Amino acid sequence: MEETIRKFKEHLAKMNAYSHAFGVLSYDSETVMPRGGSEHLGMTYAVLSEEMYKLTTSPELKEMVRNILSHGEEVDYITRREAEELREEMERTEKIPMEEYVAYQVAQNDAGNAWRKAKLTNDYALFAPHLEKLLTYSRKFAGYWDPDRAPYDVLLDQYEKGLTMATLDGFFGLLRKELLPLVQAVTAKGPVVDDAFLYKRFSIEKQRRLSDRLMEVMTIDRDHCAIGETEHPFTTSFSKDDVRITTHYHEKAFASSMYSVIHEGGHALYELHIGDDIKYSPLGGGASMSIHESQSRFFENIIGRSEPFLAYILPDIRRFGPRALKDVSAHDFYLAVNKSEPSLIRTEADELTYSFHIMVRYELEKQLIAGTLSVQDLPTAWNRLYKEYLGVDVPSDTEGVLQDSHWSGGAFGYFPSYALGSAYGAQMLKVMERDLPVWELVSKGDLKPIVAWLTERIYQYGCLLKPNELILKACEAPFDPHYYVDYLKTKYAEVYDL
Amino acid sequence: MEETIRKFKEHLAKMNAYSHAFGVLSYDSETVMPRGGSEHLGMTYAVLSEEMYKLTTSPELKEMVRNILSHGEEVDYITRREAEELREEMERTEKIPMEEYVAYQVAQNDAGNAWRKAKLTNDYALFAPHLEKLLTYSRKFAGYWDPDRAPYDVLLDQYEKGLTMATLDGFFGLLRKELLPLVQAVTAKGPVVDDAFLYKRFSIEKQRRLSDRLMEVMTIDRDHCAIGETEHPFTTSFSKDDVRITTHYHEKAFASSMYSVIHEGGHALYELHIGDDIKYSPLGGGASMSIHESQSRFFENIIGRSEPFLAYILPDIRRFGPRALKDVSAHDFYLAVNKSEPSLIRTEADELTYSFHIMVRYELEKQLIAGTLSVQDLPTAWNRLYKEYLGVDVPSDTEGVLQDSHWSGGAFGYFPSYALGSAYGAQMLKVMERDLPVWELVSKGDLKPIVAWLTERIYQYGCLLKPNELILKACEAPFDPHYYVDYLKTKYAEVYDL
Repeated sequence: MEETIRKFKEHLAKMNAYSHAFGVLSYDSETVMPRGGSEHLGMTYAVLSEEMYKLTTSPELKEMVRNILSHGEEVDYITRREAEELREEMERTEKIPMEEYVAYQVAQNDAGNAWRKAKLTNDYALFAPHLEKLLTYSRKFAGYWDPDRAPYDVLLDQYEKGLTMATLDGFFGLLRKELLPLVQAVTAKGPVVDDAFLYKRFSIEKQRRLSDRLMEVMTIDRDHCAIGETEHPFTTSFSKDDVRITTHYHEKAFASSMYSVIHEGGHALYELHIGDDIKYSPLGGGASMSIHESQSRFFENIIGRSEPFLAYILPDIRRFGPRALKDVSAHDFYLAVNKSEPSLIRTEADELTYSFHIMVRYELEKQLIAGTLSVQDLPTAWNRLYKEYLGVDVPSDTEGVLQDSHWSGGAFGYFPSYALGSAYGAQMLKVMERDLPVWELVSKGDLKPIVAWLTERIYQYGCLLKPNELILKACEAPFDPHYYVDYLKTKYAEVYDL
Repeated sequence: MEETIRKFKEHLAKMNAYSHAFGVLSYDSETVMPRGGSEHLGMTYAVLSEEMYKLTTSPELKEMVRNILSHGEEVDYITRREAEELREEMERTEKIPMEEYVAYQVAQNDAGNAWRKAKLTNDYALFAPHLEKLLTYSRKFAGYWDPDRAPYDVLLDQYEKGLTMATLDGFFGLLRKELLPLVQAVTAKGPVVDDAFLYKRFSIEKQRRLSDRLMEVMTIDRDHCAIGETEHPFTTSFSKDDVRITTHYHEKAFASSMYSVIHEGGHALYELHIGDDIKYSPLGGGASMSIHESQSRFFENIIGRSEPFLAYILPDIRRFGPRALKDVSAHDFYLAVNKSEPSLIRTEADELTYSFHIMVRYELEKQLIAGTLSVQDLPTAWNRLYKEYLGVDVPSDTEGVLQDSHWSGGAFGYFPSYALGSAYGAQMLKVMERDLPVWELVSKGDLKPIVAWLTERIYQYGCLLKPNELILKACEAPFDPHYYVDYLKTKYAEVYDL
């Protein structure tokens, strides 16, 4: 058994190297690569993914995994969990014929390039055939994985084990029922503060310094976390040793980058605090997208948009920012960054209307995968739902259906994670408030105990525990969306004096 | 044979993918990776280089190469040259035991990290054991490759086929004899212009815009060439599709970045104009380091430091740059950027004293490899030679022996390429001036015909032709260092009115 474990770990190290190389190639292509490099990159992806496919499905690995799992008692817990993960990954991968697996990697790369161009030129037609291709693959793969279940349920499973349309329909139904009246009340009330100071010129050079300061307050270790710049901010991690976040700077909308940095910073904190014993293991990443989003949105909204945090960080913002901020009070700043207003762009949406952006995507991808909505009709359907849920007219596909990168990466079933993550975060806060003087700490800019609390209950485990187990660890109860609804009701009653 | 060629090309494509992944990982580690990522990167390098080793030395490849080379007449020229290159590469690689090959990749990575830290903290002792290790490997490898020749001659061969200490001793001897009196005359004459305007504050944001403008004038296609920022500027290319240059910005020394961009831009032009038929082939890079340097230094010095070029670009520099430049004439600018003065830093050295910086390194690495100079004594020897050749006292190792990255990458035998390249460039200029109204074109900022001339005679061939064949193509005669000596004598007589 010892020899099997040694060989197994060697095999894992090899897989880790390939996924590291993949990760860096992909990060580079998003941040630095000149456009013209994409064809060559596609060729390189094809070669490396063939190798990765072989490693993932190799008969030796299968034998080792079988061996380890059938001698459970003799094997340490981490190795057993690794073998379980590998078995799952293997089963998923080998159900896809290698040629299709490789072709899919290439199609993803092509779709990403087409999407970037389409968004830039507001030309949905450029992206449509690629989207069609990815949808066809996704439906097909879902069929390979589990032909007996609805394809979209199978796809949801990738991002959150056991999540189904039935659960999500209930969850989103509750949000719609409880939050729509609140949205209406807030919209009826109108602006409670003049937020023009958020849109004054704030030089990019100085916004970069604000980013550094925000990362410092968040206790992010810069020796293990870099920050880059991309149109659409994201976080990637090659191991807890090397995490990358990105942001985008707009001279006349500094809060946009500020909250991108805090959001991505939340993802980064999770990755940076994974246990050392699993750092290069397949277990060495976040447990699921929803758990990940619970962290990014916890820091972005629950902490980052709280009055105590804003009171603490305002002097720094004033130090770097425009003159117009000199006379702004922390309370006005708080009201401004919590202004709720139906809008077009998900990533810029306020906390309250945010879920409605997700509902649009959820409804649409459900239908796209089911085949009841065609790629051609997608923009019209998108615009119709934005009118229905948010009351806004979508002026262009760039600000509409092309705004997010997710579908161009084939990530169908990912969006619900955002709403779910927000709800998880609100439930975690309750328990954290019992254990820690959360707001006193935040008002002093001392986030260390908060990060330590999250590390103890969530971060350290990586994928050792399943999402529902982590929720139990962190919340001491199963998931309950009412905490989220209550949190939003309380917060917006305060902000809008309802 | 057709089947063999198909399989051979498939194998090459696979090797290309690995070297692409390696290239991006390495570029990323120099430009973006947080420090803490280096250990993990070392692990990934180890896995990928083992795979690369296997690909390079695989018995199937050997058989294919043998087959192709023994049926020379039935095979197209490109494939034949590829097979020749591979045979050479294979022979070189398989003479090194795989464990040593892999360990060497890791040692290079470690040495790079140690060097960066050592330079930053002026602590040579941090770097010394790594340098020792790399020297030991290099000597050992030289012995594997050709135990009958002096190790340093064998190492020189890597960068310039057939180059020997005998040739270099002659070349540098001539330079010393002919140029030392010129250096002395120039030093005796003293400054001919007040160049304080070169050291006025020039914001980095605006220097970035100047870089964009310089790349535009050089006709560099930004869809295939990115620019990044590193302490030590360099160029890397994953194929002609995707070339990267880097520069470094100092607010109070804009000409430093300006000439880095033009220098690296020269390297980039070479890579960007390699023939399409060899773009993903092992022949799809520059022919040798000296030929590469002939291009970078041609653009940096011969074009970039010429009065016609400076007269053309000055309005742009004024547009972005400090007020102090408003009243500077093109002629004064020309005198300033050609100021010759013995100095400490190679990359900042003027054209005339530059070769003396190279001679120091040449003398030292010759002795380091021969084992007649110890790593421990290197800083003292460095400082002594700087005093002897350039008359300057070296105040710190950061400004001395630690200034260049080359040795930290194990590149012993590389430095002479710089001096050789400069000399090649001067010889090419002679023939180019016969074919083209070079200075008229430069004075209009029209570098296209110059790039086209170089493409026709050099760039397109990649490694299809050997360095000496390219010199014959470009110069219509074998290499003759007297052109370089004459060029420098004429130029400095003009600048210093001797």
